[in-house]
Amino acid sequence: MVQYKYLLNESDMPTHWYNILADMQNPPPFYRHPVTMEVMQDPPMPPPVFPMALIEQEFSKERWIEIPDEVQDILKLWRPAPLYRAHRWEKALDTPAKIYYKWEGVSPPGSHKPNTAVAQCYYAKQEGLEGLATETGAGQWGSALSFATNLFGLKCKVFMVAISFQQKPYRRIMMETWGGEVVPSPSSETHAGRAILEQDPETPGSLGIAISEAIEYAMTHDGYKYSLGSVVNFVLLHQTVIGLEAMKQMEMAGDYPDIVIGCAGGGSNSAGLIFPFMKDKLTGAKPDLRALFVESTACPSMTRGKYAYDWGDTAKTGPVAKMHTVGHGFIPAPVHAGGLRYHGMAPSICALLDQEFAEARAYHQNEVFDAAHSFARNEGIIVAPETSHAIRAAMDEALACKESGEAKTILFNASGHGHFDLAAYDAYHRDNLLDYQLEEEKIKAAMAELPQISG
Amino acid sequence: MVQYKYLLNESDMPTHWYNILADMQNPPPFYRHPVTMEVMQDPPMPPPVFPMALIEQEFSKERWIEIPDEVQDILKLWRPAPLYRAHRWEKALDTPAKIYYKWEGVSPPGSHKPNTAVAQCYYAKQEGLEGLATETGAGQWGSALSFATNLFGLKCKVFMVAISFQQKPYRRIMMETWGGEVVPSPSSETHAGRAILEQDPETPGSLGIAISEAIEYAMTHDGYKYSLGSVVNFVLLHQTVIGLEAMKQMEMAGDYPDIVIGCAGGGSNSAGLIFPFMKDKLTGAKPDLRALFVESTACPSMTRGKYAYDWGDTAKTGPVAKMHTVGHGFIPAPVHAGGLRYHGMAPSICALLDQEFAEARAYHQNEVFDAAHSFARNEGIIVAPETSHAIRAAMDEALACKESGEAKTILFNASGHGHFDLAAYDAYHRDNLLDYQLEEEKIKAAMAELPQISG
Repeated sequence: MVQYKYLLNESDMPTHWYNILADMQNPPPFYRHPVTMEVMQDPPMPPPVFPMALIEQEFSKERWIEIPDEVQDILKLWRPAPLYRAHRWEKALDTPAKIYYKWEGVSPPGSHKPNTAVAQCYYAKQEGLEGLATETGAGQWGSALSFATNLFGLKCKVFMVAISFQQKPYRRIMMETWGGEVVPSPSSETHAGRAILEQDPETPGSLGIAISEAIEYAMTHDGYKYSLGSVVNFVLLHQTVIGLEAMKQMEMAGDYPDIVIGCAGGGSNSAGLIFPFMKDKLTGAKPDLRALFVESTACPSMTRGKYAYDWGDTAKTGPVAKMHTVGHGFIPAPVHAGGLRYHGMAPSICALLDQEFAEARAYHQNEVFDAAHSFARNEGIIVAPETSHAIRAAMDEALACKESGEAKTILFNASGHGHFDLAAYDAYHRDNLLDYQLEEEKIKAAMAELPQISG
Repeated sequence: MVQYKYLLNESDMPTHWYNILADMQNPPPFYRHPVTMEVMQDPPMPPPVFPMALIEQEFSKERWIEIPDEVQDILKLWRPAPLYRAHRWEKALDTPAKIYYKWEGVSPPGSHKPNTAVAQCYYAKQEGLEGLATETGAGQWGSALSFATNLFGLKCKVFMVAISFQQKPYRRIMMETWGGEVVPSPSSETHAGRAILEQDPETPGSLGIAISEAIEYAMTHDGYKYSLGSVVNFVLLHQTVIGLEAMKQMEMAGDYPDIVIGCAGGGSNSAGLIFPFMKDKLTGAKPDLRALFVESTACPSMTRGKYAYDWGDTAKTGPVAKMHTVGHGFIPAPVHAGGLRYHGMAPSICALLDQEFAEARAYHQNEVFDAAHSFARNEGIIVAPETSHAIRAAMDEALACKESGEAKTILFNASGHGHFDLAAYDAYHRDNLLDYQLEEEKIKAAMAELPQISG
C-alpha cells in the first residue's frame, strides 16, 4: 500500500533542541556592539532586550538543550507535524526523484513561527514579565506571538507595518482573536514612530521602523521585553524540532535525503529543518549531503550580498553581526513573500555558506508561483509565497533528476499555508505578478553604509 | 504524560463507509416526484442529475459500502484526521467533563466537505463524465469540489451566490487555484439566471437560485452532471469516515462518549461523526448515548420547523423529501454561518429526531461566537462560524457537568477552520454582530407553500 504521510506520536517528539554551534569548527564570530563595535564575548548582550534565558541560549555551546515540559505541552496542540511523500507531484513532474516535505502549516497560526514563539513566551513568563512587544510585516510572526502569549497569560504588543495593517485585515483580526494588541507602524506611541510620522504622515511604514518601535516600546514599558521571530541563534535553535522530527520520519520511510531545502528570509524555518541533518555532514557521517537555502531575487543577501559585518536593524540599535547582507538600508521591492524581505541572514547559516557546507539560490516571483501552482494542483496544499521558493528549488532538483536519470531523495520544508496570501495567487492567475529586476545600484548604495570592521 | 491528540496511521483508515439506513427500523420514507408527488421507490431517480453509482448508494440498504482504493488514496492527503482532547479548554471551563473533538479543518479546502467531493468525483470519472456543476454559498463546498475535480482531471463549474462572490474573493481565488470555473449567480449562462437578472439586475443572489443554475447547467451540457454537498444519503454516507476514525481514536483514549455533537445545516458533518456511534444506540449496545444536532436560530428547521414533505430546492426541481423544514421559500437572515442557512435537513437525521434517537438545539449568533472565542483562546484553533454552533453546545454540556458534578464524556466535530470568516470575528470583537429575532411570520408564510401529501 502506498504511504503518503509519516506521522509520529506525541511520545516521539524531541525532548531537546539541537544547537548547531556545538558542532561547528568555525562558528560565526561574536556580535559587535552597535555603537562601539567592541566584541560582545559573553552574555548579557547589552541592552538586555530579551529574557535572560534566551540570551544564555544565544551564546550556549551545549549541543542539546532541554525543551521545558510546558513548551512541549503547548507544541502538542499541533506537533508532531506530518512528513509527506509527494507521490502525486513526482508523477506530474515525471521525475525519478523522491520528494518529501515537512508540513508546518498545521499550526493554528499557519506556519512554523509558533515553534519559537511558544518557547520565548515560556522564558518570558519564567522571568516574571507582563508582556512582549514585537514587529510584524505581513503578520505571520505577529500571529504566532499573539497565539503564544495568550496561552501563557502574557500581553502582546504588535507593531504591524502600516501598509500591511491596511491591506491584510485578516491577519490583524487573527492576532486580535488571540488577544494581541495591534497598532499600525509608524505609530504615535513611540518616539521613533512619531519622528517618522512628523516627516511623512502618509508613510507606508517598513519592517525596520517597526522593529525600532517594538524595541523602544519594550525598553520603556515596565514588565515588557522584546521578541524576535528569526535570525538569531536561539530562534533557530527552537526551530530544530522541525528537523529532529523529520529525521525520525525519514527513518520510518526508510530514506535519507540527498538534498535538504528551505526558503530563507532571516533563516529560521530552513535552519529548523536543515540543521539536524547538517549535524550528520559536520560530523562526517553524511559528507555528500547538500543543503540549499533559497531566497528571493528581490532581496538576494546570500547570492548577491557581501559576507560582512552589518547591523541587524535599519535603525542600528541592535548588535552588529557578520552575515550575508545587502545592507541594513536596503529596501527590497514589494514581493508577496514579505518574510523574505530581510536585508541580512542568520549568522550561523552564513558561516555554513561561507565554509561551503551549504548552497544558496535566488528566484524571481513568477517562477516560484509556477511551482506553487503545480504543487497546489497535485498535492492539494496552497502554500505561502515564502514557501513557494523552497518548492521551486525542489521542483528544479527533481527536474534535474529527470534529465540525469538519477533517483535522488529531496526533502524540503513546507513552512506555511497561503490562506491569507490568495491575492498573490489571483495576481498570478491574471498575469499581474511582477518580476523585479535586480537593483544593483540600490544594493551598492546600501553596501557603502556597512560598518568598518576588520575580520 | 498528558496526551492531547489521538492519531491513526493511514493503515488504520476505514475501508468501508457505514450506511445507517441498514440499521434503522423505520428509515425515512421514499422521495416523491417533484411534480407528480408519486413515490420514487427505486433508482434511477428521475432526472438522473447524479452519477448512477451515487444514485444506487442513495437507495442502498447495505450496511457497509466499500471505499474505492483511489478514493482512499486521495483522502490520505489529509486523513486520518486528528482527534483531540481539549485539556486546556476543560481547565478554563472548570468542568469535570472530558471534552474531545475531531478536527476536520486539516483538509486542504479547510473542512470535512472534500470527504464526499472526492468520492463523487471518483464515480463521475468512472462514468466517463467530463465535469461537474455545483452551487456554493460562502464557498466551502465549491472549494472542496474544485479541489477534488482537479485531482481527477475533471472540470468544475461553480455557481457562487453573487453577494459572496463579491464579498469573499479569497474563496473564489482558492477555487480558481484548483482550476474551478467560478461565476457569480445569477449568471447569464442559464435560463434560470437570465430570468432573475431580467427582473432584478442588482440581486444579491441566493443558494436556491444557484442550485437551479447548477442543475440546469449540468442537464444542458454534455458530459456534465450535478454535484451536491449535503442532505442526501450518499453524501452523509461518505462523511462517515469521520465517525469511524473517531471511534477508533476514542478507543485509543480508553473512552466512549456520553454525548456526540455536530452542527447541522444540511447535516453532513454532524451525521458523519454521529452515525457510526448511533449504530451502537440503534443496535442496543449503547442505549443511553445522546446525539445532538445544533442549528442556527436564523434557520431553525429542526427546532421550529415542521416534519413534513417539502422540496429540497427553492425552484422545486429536485425530489420532495420528508424532513424538518421551515419551507423551501424561507430566506434566512444573513448569519455568518452560511452553511446553516438551508431550509430543510437530511431526511435520515430527521427520522432519527422524529423517533427520539437524537436531539436538536438552536443558538443565536453571539452566543456561538462567545464559545468559538473561548475555544480559540484555549485550544488555539479559530473555527468556522458553522462549527461554533457545535462548540457552544459542547460548552453548555460541559458547564452543565460543572453544575451537576458529573464527569461526562463529550465529543464534537470541529468541522472546519475560520480563516476566511475572520470578518465575522472582527464584528464580534467590535460588538457589531447581530442576533436575529425568530421570524415567525416568514416561517408561517413559507409553511403555507408545502406540498400536500399525506403520511
